Amino acid sequence: MGKIYEDLIVSIPDYPKEGVIFKDIMPVLSDAKAFAAVVDDIAAHFEGQGVTKVMGAEARGFLVGSAVAYRMGAGFVPARKPGKLPRKAIREEFDLEYGSSALEVHVDSLTEDDKVLIVDDLIATGGTAVAMVKLVERAGAALVGLGFFVELADLEPRKLLGNVTDAEVFSLVSVSGA
Amino acid sequence: MGKIYEDLIVSIPDYPKEGVIFKDIMPVLSDAKAFAAVVDDIAAHFEGQGVTKVMGAEARGFLVGSAVAYRMGAGFVPARKPGKLPRKAIREEFDLEYGSSALEVHVDSLTEDDKVLIVDDLIATGGTAVAMVKLVERAGAALVGLGFFVELADLEPRKLLGNVTDAEVFSLVSVSGA
Repeated sequence: MGKIYEDLIVSIPDYPKEGVIFKDIMPVLSDAKAFAAVVDDIAAHFEGQGVTKVMGAEARGFLVGSAVAYRMGAGFVPARKPGKLPRKAIREEFDLEYGSSALEVHVDSLTEDDKVLIVDDLIATGGTAVAMVKLVERAGAALVGLGFFVELADLEPRKLLGNVTDAEVFSLVSVSGA
Repeated sequence: MGKIYEDLIVSIPDYPKEGVIFKDIMPVLSDAKAFAAVVDDIAAHFEGQGVTKVMGAEARGFLVGSAVAYRMGAGFVPARKPGKLPRKAIREEFDLEYGSSALEVHVDSLTEDDKVLIVDDLIATGGTAVAMVKLVERAGAALVGLGFFVELADLEPRKLLGNVTDAEVFSLVSVSGA
């Protein structure tokens, strides 16, 4: 028995393919108390560091990220899939298991005065997180840290992130042996 | 000069095609005060009606919706594009300008005791909103209302919504002649 949000994560064996145990966090979001606890605990961890913007990746990264931004009194910067932003944007590509993808942010969504917290519901290999770190850097903003609800520790995302940033990586729930 | 969030909406002529004026609300989200005002004003309007869940549609509907859910002490139910939810879901199809799309919610994300507020950043034709109304109904939950940041009134979304629900439709900003 862990925190309220830990108990509501549903493990789905062999999804989306055999041998993988999928962690479904949707029941956490739809539970008012658990959702608030996730948002509050991530926000509390990074409080007092002057965060001005929270960045989250389309689409699931919007779910926890925008609520954390609201809670911290920060703006929210969506890192969107290519072709979704109507004005001038910067882009970072990253590898997926098969092929690659990319994330974009509007050039005017971050300034050199911004202190950015990257938030996502889940970190697995860390590919999208690395792309967001690079977008923050290219915009000239400062990266305060990265906050996640669930970390799939066996996939060693901290190793990948360590190649691109010294910023703190914080997870509420770390899952091993999944 | 309107409210802080009204002034930050960027109008982009001829996007995504000639003759259309696109309303870009991303600068509103990345401004901490404007973002908080959007969330607070939608939440305040529906306060005291016992909202237990906020529903928003992938992907942009997650941005304002999840923060409104947090602000109201409610859970958040993401209406996702087909194939994204790992467990049993109900689906509603809706028409797009060309072709059709669909939204899905997990069957266990809503109960008959839930009072649901549908939230989106923008309502245009109302197709996705109608699909969400039907999902709430099929789940047996009660619909408290629908709250939007921007309404493109010329596209007459209220007419379409009026065919499926008597619930209140509320928008912070109504745009005509766009």
